[in-house]
Amino acid sequence: MYQQVLEMSTRGRGMTEITKDVTRVVRASKVSSGIAFIFPQHTSCSVVITENADASVRGDLEMLAKRWVPDGDSAYRHDAEGDDDMAAHARSVLSGTSVSVPIGNGALLLGTWQGIFLWEHRTNPHSRRIVVTVMG
Amino acid sequence: MYQQVLEMSTRGRGMTEITKDVTRVVRASKVSSGIAFIFPQHTSCSVVITENADASVRGDLEMLAKRWVPDGDSAYRHDAEGDDDMAAHARSVLSGTSVSVPIGNGALLLGTWQGIFLWEHRTNPHSRRIVVTVMG
Amino acid sequence: MYQQVLEMSTRGRGMTEITKDVTRVVRASKVSSGIAFIFPQHTSCSVVITENADASVRGDLEMLAKRWVPDGDSAYRHDAEGDDDMAAHARSVLSGTSVSVPIGNGALLLGTWQGIFLWEHRTNPHSRRIVVTVMG
Repeated sequence: MYQQVLEMSTRGRGMTEITKDVTRVVRASKVSSGIAFIFPQHTSCSVVITENADASVRGDLEMLAKRWVPDGDSAYRHDAEGDDDMAAHARSVLSGTSVSVPIGNGALLLGTWQGIFLWEHRTNPHSRRIVVTVMG
Repeated sequence: MYQQVLEMSTRGRGMTEITKDVTRVVRASKVSSGIAFIFPQHTSCSVVITENADASVRGDLEMLAKRWVPDGDSAYRHDAEGDDDMAAHARSVLSGTSVSVPIGNGALLLGTWQGIFLWEHRTNPHSRRIVVTVMG
Repeated sequence: MYQQVLEMSTRGRGMTEITKDVTRVVRASKVSSGIAFIFPQHTSCSVVITENADASVRGDLEMLAKRWVPDGDSAYRHDAEGDDDMAAHARSVLSGTSVSVPIGNGALLLGTWQGIFLWEHRTNPHSRRIVVTVMG
């Protein structure tokens, strides 16, 4: 069991790849086979796995997320922090809070096109804490 | 490794916070660092993590879920148990069945605003079984 | 800790139940209590848990997924592999990449109506690799 908190600054809505950051934690853990759990301590951002090669995938996901969960919908009652407040919580529930990735031979067993991304759902920059736990 | 089943009665559609129930299982496990897995044995409710302070967040999520997955849609073929039958299965797939939460110093490493909720997707009250597994 | 890769061939878009395949890995692991992690190494298919009895549930989920994420939407910029390319990535993010299932008495602790399914999101047949990791 090895645990480390990644502290990240986001530049507002959008995805930041964190595969290398998680890889460093897995190496530090010296776990050869097991699982890495990547858990953000927030309800307005997510950690997701998606295509790591073509950035237009992340742009299209952003476009779709705005359809699934419109900003500033007149039906929202939770809007104290602005148009993106409730939208961010809903995007977090839809895409899921956290991910688990298998480890083999001391490395993340990701497929060729899989990357791990921090998905910031708020429009303004935020400081985010991601707890990475490695068990083997 | 420690495992316990939580038996819950829901009052129909909506979220019930179970953070305290999970915390009790983590304490009983005496695991200091690791992961808690919270898994409902059903396909028409979910366990999710979302904002724990303002109840209007859960109300807005309910409103959005009805848009994502309408009750009684005329295109559904699976409707034996009523208008909410297929909708409940789809809400479970969209929000995800279960969650994993890291543990440190014997406590759930949740952020300030994160709560763990059982989300009942059926309109009528149901008895639900949630398997909590703690590994450290 | 026990790890095995399942190699599956899909026949294009749709769900294939893999509960028995995962059960075989759990038996081979000889783990009595713990967790099974089922992780596909791809960003255009998912592993999900849903109702295992009535196939019309999977048909209705397919119908809903087409509403949530239309094929060939004119707003997509990522379309090099066809109308289902971006749709497949978005369906993977919405339904979540992987699942974790508790184990007790050497068996998956699934509810009566829960099955584990590989959900192929591409329209053409694909070869898929699913890493199953059992920890106890």
